[in-house]
Amino acid sequence: MTSIEKVRTNDPEGLKSRVIEAAFRAFTTRGFNATGVQDLLRTIGVSGGAYSHHFASKKDLALAVITNSVVSAVDKSWIAPVNAADSTKQGVRAVFRKLIDSLERAGTIFGCPLNNLALELSTQDPDIRAAIDEVFSHWRDELTKKIRRDQSRGLLKHLVAEDAATFIIATYSGAMAMAKASGSTRPLQICSKQLVSYLS
Amino acid sequence: MTSIEKVRTNDPEGLKSRVIEAAFRAFTTRGFNATGVQDLLRTIGVSGGAYSHHFASKKDLALAVITNSVVSAVDKSWIAPVNAADSTKQGVRAVFRKLIDSLERAGTIFGCPLNNLALELSTQDPDIRAAIDEVFSHWRDELTKKIRRDQSRGLLKHLVAEDAATFIIATYSGAMAMAKASGSTRPLQICSKQLVSYLS
Repeated sequence: MTSIEKVRTNDPEGLKSRVIEAAFRAFTTRGFNATGVQDLLRTIGVSGGAYSHHFASKKDLALAVITNSVVSAVDKSWIAPVNAADSTKQGVRAVFRKLIDSLERAGTIFGCPLNNLALELSTQDPDIRAAIDEVFSHWRDELTKKIRRDQSRGLLKHLVAEDAATFIIATYSGAMAMAKASGSTRPLQICSKQLVSYLS
Repeated sequence: MTSIEKVRTNDPEGLKSRVIEAAFRAFTTRGFNATGVQDLLRTIGVSGGAYSHHFASKKDLALAVITNSVVSAVDKSWIAPVNAADSTKQGVRAVFRKLIDSLERAGTIFGCPLNNLALELSTQDPDIRAAIDEVFSHWRDELTKKIRRDQSRGLLKHLVAEDAATFIIATYSGAMAMAKASGSTRPLQICSKQLVSYLS
């Protein structure tokens, strides 16, 4: 056993984070139901006992993935860049451009982690559905605030801020599903252009 | 055994359709990976032997569900009503309205069958991904033709028909995912209104 592994074994929060991070990757790339917990633990070298200490069930693991990794992914890929941009329009354009670039470099399109889990799990469990809905609400609220800031500067006066935020998220989520199905970023490119024109 | 069951047993194509129909329902409501073939066969009273005569694998069953039931669902819920409407705008409004009504009557929102399968299976198998992509393409092509017919009558001149079709499908698919996550038709209502304004 190397010293790094030893430190990790003696660091329950580090171990918990590693399990969540690995589960996030597996759920995003393969899906929740297609991921076996035993396989997951084997790939990261965590024992069933150590795992059970943190997660009473696979549902608990799903909830931890949603409230940690999925929230972080939405914050990092959407909310932070939109808030940092001069306007909602420029923010949305920047988010799509960065995403399209990174998908083209990666080669495979696994889709939006939130959307993947939403479609797979929303009708399977009410607590998971509520956790997923909370991430969508957080995302929509942050976009709404950005649109309102634009409106206070005289921009986007023709839009109802909250409806526009829902519309942007829906279009993005669906474009990502079509990109995943077509194995191409073209639906994202098209929808980015349409949204930028909607926000002009 | 009643005479109806006897007829069905002696009717391989009828049996095949019954399996596809039951699988479509199960994949849409629970998901592909969460559906066990043995459970499915038990609920419709079909033997493993009769099933194996038609489907060599669960993948074969998924392909049959996509090329039969999912194509029919898209035709019935989207393509036929849009083609029957006076304009793309009126067609899109009618499709959303009918869908929202039926979801509110049903109570539970299982989401769009195509989108559910696209997100769950596109990266799991290349043949399934291709079949799903073909349904999206068919849907987009039919909407594109409708928009072009509007354009030949002087409507929607500001839009690139194929891009607008992709945008409509993406927005609908994402709105359905958000509706499923929120357990409410509100995202569909909002996106319908935004799309109708986009098509005005």
